[in-house]
This record gives sequence, structure tokens and C-alpha cells, in this order.
Amino acid sequence: MWYSTITKELNELESRILNVIHSENSELDEMCKYVITAGGKRFRPAVCILSYLACGGQDVRRAIDLGAAYEIVHSASLIHDDINDKSEIRRGRRTLHKEYTVSKAIVAGDYMMARGFQLLGVTSKEIVDIIVEAASRMSESEFIQKDLEHIQNVTEDDYYRIVRGKTSKLIEACAKSGAYLACASNEELDAIGNFSRGIGMAHQIIDDTLDIIGNFHNTGKNVGLDILEGKPTLPIIVAMNDSHYGSSVAEIFTKDNPTEVDVKNALDIIKKTSAVKICRKKASEEVENAIKSIGSIKDSPYKESLILLARYVASRDR
Amino acid sequence: MWYSTITKELNELESRILNVIHSENSELDEMCKYVITAGGKRFRPAVCILSYLACGGQDVRRAIDLGAAYEIVHSASLIHDDINDKSEIRRGRRTLHKEYTVSKAIVAGDYMMARGFQLLGVTSKEIVDIIVEAASRMSESEFIQKDLEHIQNVTEDDYYRIVRGKTSKLIEACAKSGAYLACASNEELDAIGNFSRGIGMAHQIIDDTLDIIGNFHNTGKNVGLDILEGKPTLPIIVAMNDSHYGSSVAEIFTKDNPTEVDVKNALDIIKKTSAVKICRKKASEEVENAIKSIGSIKDSPYKESLILLARYVASRDR
Repeated sequence: MWYSTITKELNELESRILNVIHSENSELDEMCKYVITAGGKRFRPAVCILSYLACGGQDVRRAIDLGAAYEIVHSASLIHDDINDKSEIRRGRRTLHKEYTVSKAIVAGDYMMARGFQLLGVTSKEIVDIIVEAASRMSESEFIQKDLEHIQNVTEDDYYRIVRGKTSKLIEACAKSGAYLACASNEELDAIGNFSRGIGMAHQIIDDTLDIIGNFHNTGKNVGLDILEGKPTLPIIVAMNDSHYGSSVAEIFTKDNPTEVDVKNALDIIKKTSAVKICRKKASEEVENAIKSIGSIKDSPYKESLILLARYVASRDR
Repeated sequence: MWYSTITKELNELESRILNVIHSENSELDEMCKYVITAGGKRFRPAVCILSYLACGGQDVRRAIDLGAAYEIVHSASLIHDDINDKSEIRRGRRTLHKEYTVSKAIVAGDYMMARGFQLLGVTSKEIVDIIVEAASRMSESEFIQKDLEHIQNVTEDDYYRIVRGKTSKLIEACAKSGAYLACASNEELDAIGNFSRGIGMAHQIIDDTLDIIGNFHNTGKNVGLDILEGKPTLPIIVAMNDSHYGSSVAEIFTKDNPTEVDVKNALDIIKKTSAVKICRKKASEEVENAIKSIGSIKDSPYKESLILLARYVASRDR
């Protein structure tokens, strides 16, 4: 498994995260734990820790702290995303604002964001810059995406632009700051940067594909949310360009308030196109290019784990 | 005027803030500017810059950067507060989520928070700790306050505990980190800490008093919001303890959904009690004690400005 080289580190990460988010207020504490223990895949900290070790880092506790910070900031951003997207289920459980209230969830997100930044602040100006740049780009991409909701003539290039800001940038930040902490050379930093942008892109493409073909049992969330919200994802864009079914998909996608029946119909039609196949292929290509880009990094079990992680990202069904 | 010693610095602060919050996304940029240019009093950065100068700091640009970070973080927190409080008006203008949308306002708040932390990250671990501790305490206090909404037996001690976390802590952070940046002695840090906690408390007491007796022209917001939201402020708590009118105030305050007529009645009744007078007196006492606590700081025009600022806080009517 991709994580077998860092099992111990990932365990330590869990206690570090719980330790950092602890609040004296019992309800706030409970809410943070609710989010953190929902069982995320810990992708981002894993990328951070593995990049650190693959670049020769010697004091892994520093990378664990950094990884914890990323997981906390990422989880905080999901709390606010779920409010914005009106999502009711994540990882098989009610989203935080549904389990508590929107007000409390906004505050809890702010609290976790502050705790995450606190952990980052102990590193270096360069690392703070890397993550804040990523956090700012995430916000900007939310705006770009909102402007393209329910729009028919959105292009694949629009999608890639959104994903670079929304997803890739933070995964790149995890990897690059891990490498930076390990005193990686500029060549290594570039290699790790290219690698992580690629897996960030693949990760999002697969996420968006699972919104079409996934099921609740595997993904822990409802499918078809992107159709419902009018979010222009790659499988939807590809399907809208299908010569036979494209116009039927577009007709539903451009509705401001599609019904549940609309969503189900759209999913059925998209599955008749080659959109899912094209997306899976695209994700694999991204990952294989990503793997090529770390050719210059010295061979090690950690580099091998990064490669396994990358291939897992492109092939996962949950 | 309290700000006459730092007029130039406050001007530089404005351009620094605009520079930091700038976003490539034009709508996000516009939203941040909307919030920042609404004409806040720049209390927090002023406290930071004056504390720095009063403690002998020589490179004021560093204090300006720090002050800008505080104003940005504070403004970001107001965006989310306004969503949570369903406030429609602030500083005479529609609140951000009313002018745009709740979703966009949540994202804009996150963006500004990240930019604020970025500016802080260049300082030192100690300063990051000071502000993040304050930001975390702000979140925790929101929870404590929510649990005491519309509750009759809330005490003045509950109020002070909430305000210490909600308001005082951030103003203390502004002052202490300014002093810290100026390499202040521990004695000076303690003095500045006590001083700023006092003016933070006075500032909130007056804010809450203006929610009873203010008017839109002066405060730029509607009055009676705390009654409407059931927030236990000092004037309300004092009025609920009035031997003659207390029960009438409590009857309205404990309603889960008071009407506009209820709110108007409550304001009229509270004005018949000595609550406002008691609150003003309490704010003055806090400020005079605060001023005493900086006796050990070397005399300077900046210390004089801090004292003027403190007295202004306790006497302001807007």
C-alpha cells in the first residue's frame, strides 16, 4: 500500500491534529472532532510527509506538524464549502452545519483555520507564503467556478483553470513545503511541484467522475451533486460535447433549479457517453506525467510510496 | 485628537491594507474593498502602532504591517459575524452578504483571513501565537455567547467573560504584539497588556450601550439588534436586574422571536432605568484603570495618544 512506509507517522499525525484543534469550549471541541474523525484519506499530509522524506528530511516530526496544519486548513475549508454548496452528507455523515447550525459551523471553520495557521506560523516565512498563496487561490477559484455554474459553453480549459486553483494548488503547497522543510534543491522543488500539481489534477478529475458513477456506499456522499449545483466538471463538460447526447445533457445542466428526476436523467445520459472513460484516461495521463517529473528525485522507499499514491489517486473508486 | 501623532502612519496603513487584500479576481477584489473602505475607525491598528512607538520601536513600517494584518483579520471576522447575526447594515451600508450573497461573503471572509495571517507570518512565532490565540478565543466566545442568548439569569460575570474573549483579547493582541515588536521589556508588555484589556472592555461596553441609545446617523447601524438577537449585553443585564422595570425587560429579552414592537418597547423601558448611566460609568472606570496601568511606560507623545484614545473610547457616541 502507498502508506506502508509512513504508517507510524500517520498515526502520530492523528494525535497531533486532535491536540491542536482542542478547544476549552466543549461544543466547539466536539464539532472539530466530528469533522476530523470523519475519516478523511489524509492525502494532503501524506503528500507532505512523503515529499519531506523523499527529499532527505531527517526530523519527521516537523513534517508531521506541517501535515497536520494542512489537514486542519483543508478540513476547515470543507466546512465552509459544504455550507456554500448546501451539501448535507460528507463521508457518510451529516455535514457539520446540518448536524449543528450554519452559524456554529462558520465559527468552527474559522477556529480550525486559525489553529491550522498557528501550526504553520512556527515554520518559516517561505512556507507561510506557500500555503497562504494556496488558500487565497482556493478562494479566487470559488469565484471563477460560481460564475460558470449552469453555463453551457464552459470549456475544458475553464475546468483546468478552476481545478488548478481549487485543488492542485493546495496539494502542491503540501508537497513543496514538505520538500522545502527538507532543504530540497531548487531542481527537487520543481520536480516535486510538477508531480503534485499532476496528482492534484488527477485527484479532482476522479472526484468529479465519482460524482457521476460513484455510490453512497463507496464515496460516503450522494451522487449527482455537481449536476444539481450546476458545477462545470470535466465529465459534464465532455458529455456536453458529445455529438449524440451533448444537447440533452446541456439542457439539464443549464437549468437553474434542476429536479431530482433531472439529475437522475442527466447521470443516466452521461453514463451512455464516453465521458467517464475519457476522464479516467485523462487522470491516468496526468499521473503518469507526474511520475515522470520526479525522475530526478533520488530513489527511496518514500519516492516509491509517492508513485504508488499517485497511481492510487488515478484508479480509486471512493 | 488621539490620532494626530500617527496621521502619516494611518495613511500608509490604508494603502498597505488595499495592497495586501488585492485579488486577481475582480469581484473578490471589489468585495474586499467594499468591506475595507466602509470607514472603520482603525482602532486596532492604531493601538498596535501607538504601542510600538510608545515602547520605543524605531522602524514603524513593521508596526504598520502588523496593524494592517489586524485590521484585515478583524474585518474578515466581521463579515462572518454579520452572516451569523443576520445583520443587514454596518457602517451605514448593506453588509457584505446582503450586497452580494452569503456564499460569496463566506469565501471573501476566508480569503481576507488568509491574507491577514500571511502578513503576520513574516513577523515571529511569538506574534503568530498571540494573534491566533486571540482568534481562537474569539471563536470560543461566540459559542459561550450563543448558549446564553435569550437567557434571563445571565450575569454580569458571564458578560465580562464573553467580552474578554470576543473583544478584549484581540485588542490586547494588537497592543502586545506591537510592544513585542518594539522589543519591550516584560514589565512594559504587562503594562500594555493590562491597558489594552481595559480599553477593549470599555470599547465593547460602549458598543453595547450604543445599541440601546445610538441612532443610525451616528452609528451607521440599526439599534436594538442585541434585544432582537437575544444577546446578553451589559446594559440589558443591568436593566433586567432593575427592581422596578427588570421583569418587563426580561420578559421581552427571553422571547425567542421578539417582534419589532417588542424591541422598541424594550429599548424604551431600558432607557427608563439607570442601565445606560451605569454602563458609561463602568466604561470610564475601566479606562481610568487602564490609564493607570501604563504609568510605568516612559512618557512620550505616543503614550499621550494612547491615553487620549482610551478616553475617546469611553466617551464616544458613534
